[in-house]
Amino acid sequence: MPDQDTGVLYIVGIGPGAEAHITPAALRAIQEAELVVGYTTYIKLVKHLIDGKEIVRTGMTEEIARARAAVERAQAGAKVALISSGDAGVYGMAGLVFQVLKDIGWKRGEPPELRLIPGITALNSCASLVGAPLVHDFCAISLSDLLTPWPVIVRRIEAAASADFVIGLYNPASGRRTRQIVEAQSIVRRHRAGDTPVALVKSAYRKLQHAVLTDVDHFLDYEIGMLTTVLVGSSNTYAFEGYMVTPRGYSNKYTSDGEVLPGQRPGFSLTADRFSPQPEEQ
Amino acid sequence: MPDQDTGVLYIVGIGPGAEAHITPAALRAIQEAELVVGYTTYIKLVKHLIDGKEIVRTGMTEEIARARAAVERAQAGAKVALISSGDAGVYGMAGLVFQVLKDIGWKRGEPPELRLIPGITALNSCASLVGAPLVHDFCAISLSDLLTPWPVIVRRIEAAASADFVIGLYNPASGRRTRQIVEAQSIVRRHRAGDTPVALVKSAYRKLQHAVLTDVDHFLDYEIGMLTTVLVGSSNTYAFEGYMVTPRGYSNKYTSDGEVLPGQRPGFSLTADRFSPQPEEQ
Repeated sequence: MPDQDTGVLYIVGIGPGAEAHITPAALRAIQEAELVVGYTTYIKLVKHLIDGKEIVRTGMTEEIARARAAVERAQAGAKVALISSGDAGVYGMAGLVFQVLKDIGWKRGEPPELRLIPGITALNSCASLVGAPLVHDFCAISLSDLLTPWPVIVRRIEAAASADFVIGLYNPASGRRTRQIVEAQSIVRRHRAGDTPVALVKSAYRKLQHAVLTDVDHFLDYEIGMLTTVLVGSSNTYAFEGYMVTPRGYSNKYTSDGEVLPGQRPGFSLTADRFSPQPEEQ
Repeated sequence: MPDQDTGVLYIVGIGPGAEAHITPAALRAIQEAELVVGYTTYIKLVKHLIDGKEIVRTGMTEEIARARAAVERAQAGAKVALISSGDAGVYGMAGLVFQVLKDIGWKRGEPPELRLIPGITALNSCASLVGAPLVHDFCAISLSDLLTPWPVIVRRIEAAASADFVIGLYNPASGRRTRQIVEAQSIVRRHRAGDTPVALVKSAYRKLQHAVLTDVDHFLDYEIGMLTTVLVGSSNTYAFEGYMVTPRGYSNKYTSDGEVLPGQRPGFSLTADRFSPQPEEQ
C-alpha cells in the first residue's frame, strides 16, 4: 500500500467497457482514486463506480492536457486514476504519461508512484465476438495519420500483408479520414485471396455492439467508423459457421484424432517438406 | 441464460494468472461450469475457484485431446469451461476448438453453445510491467516451430523488423529450442540500433515474476525460456528511468505544452515535411 502522503498515478485500462470485462485490479484502482481523469466516453462507461469522486473529463484531442493534469495532481500527493478504454498501453494514455514525466525531469523513486494496470484491448475483445482470428501471428496497425506519417503506416500494412500476418486495424476511419481504409484494402488485396475472411467489429461489449463477417473483396461495402476494429485474416484463416478462425497449425503435424503424421515428431521442429506450396495449409 | 438441457462450452482466457487480473466474466464461466478442462499449470492458477468440480487436466502436448474432450462433453449437455492462460484466442485453445467442431460437422445453433470470454494476453500483462512499449503499432510472433515451418516465422520477423513494428515474441525458447531466438536477434539487429530497448518478462503477475530491461545487442546475455515474453522496441522506443516507452507521436504535432507546431493542424493528417530522415522522432 502506498504511503498516505505519497501521490499515486494509476494508469488503468478498463477493457471494452462492460463491467464483466473490467479486472478487479482496474476496479480497485478506480475505487482508491480521489481523482479520475479520462476522455468523456470512458468516464461514462464507469460512471456508476465513481460517485462522489473528483472527475476531470476532457475531449478527444486534449490528451496532452489530460496526461499533464493527472501527473501534476499525483505529484502533489493525490491518488489519481487515468483511465483508457481497452489497455492503456495500446494506443492509450500510458505513452503520453511517460512523455510528460520525461518533460518534467521525473526520476524513478520520486512521486508520483506509477502503477500500470493492464486491460483487455480491442484486438482481444473484438476477436472473441467473431471466433478465433488471432490464434496465430498477428499485428496491430492504427490507420490514424494524425500523429504518424501516412507513408510509415503504408509500409507497415505492406509488410504485414506480405508476411501473412493476421492484421488488426485500429482507428480505420473517421468522418474526415476515409481514404486510408480504401488504400489499406488495395494493399491487402495484392497479398490475399479476395475471399479471405475479414471481420468488422463495432463497440464490442457495449450497447451498440455490431459484428460483421465478410471478406477482403467486400468489407468496404459495410460501414466502417471510429469505433470499428477491422480484423483481416491470414492466408490460413477460414470462415466456419459464421466464425472467423486462424488455425495454430496442428493439422501440419497431427491427424484430427491426435495421431502424429508420417515424418513428424512431437516436441521437435516441423519437418519442412510438407510445406510447399502452402505453409500451414488446413 | 442457456437452457438447462443445452450444453455450453465456455472458452475462457484467465489472463496472466493472478486473481486481480481475471475478469468477472471469466470467473463466472468457471463458476458455472460443471467440468473444467485445462493444462495442468492453468488449472493450478484457478485451483481455489474449482473446488468440487470435475477436472480434466492434461499435459502441454495433449491439446487436441483436451479440445475434443471439452467439445464432446459440452455436446452431450454439460457446462464446460476450457481454460487458457492469457487470452484463449491468442495462441490458445480457441482455434483448436473450432477445428474439432469442423471435424465433427457441427452447425451453428446446434449444441454445444459457444461462449468465448476474452482475457488479458501476455503482450499486455508483460507490457504493463515494463512501461508502455505497445503504444504504437506492434506485432506478435511465436518462435515455436513445432507447428509452423521455421521459414514462415523468419519471414514474419524480417517483415516486422523492417517495417519498424514493436515486436512481441511468444514462446521464444525452450529446453530443446534455443537456436530460434539467436536467429531472431540477428534479423532484428540488421534493422534496429543495438541500443534499442528490449524487455524480457517472465511469469508476469505470478510468483516467480521477473522483468529485465536490456537492449537488442545484449538481450541474449539473459536467461530466456518457455515462460519469457520478449518485447523488442521500434526505432522510436526509448528507455526512461528503467521503463520502456514507445511514443504515440504527439511530439510530431504538438509541443509538450500542447501547442500545435507550425505547419500542422489538429484533426488533420500530419504534414510530411518534418519526417525525413527520422519518422516519428521524439
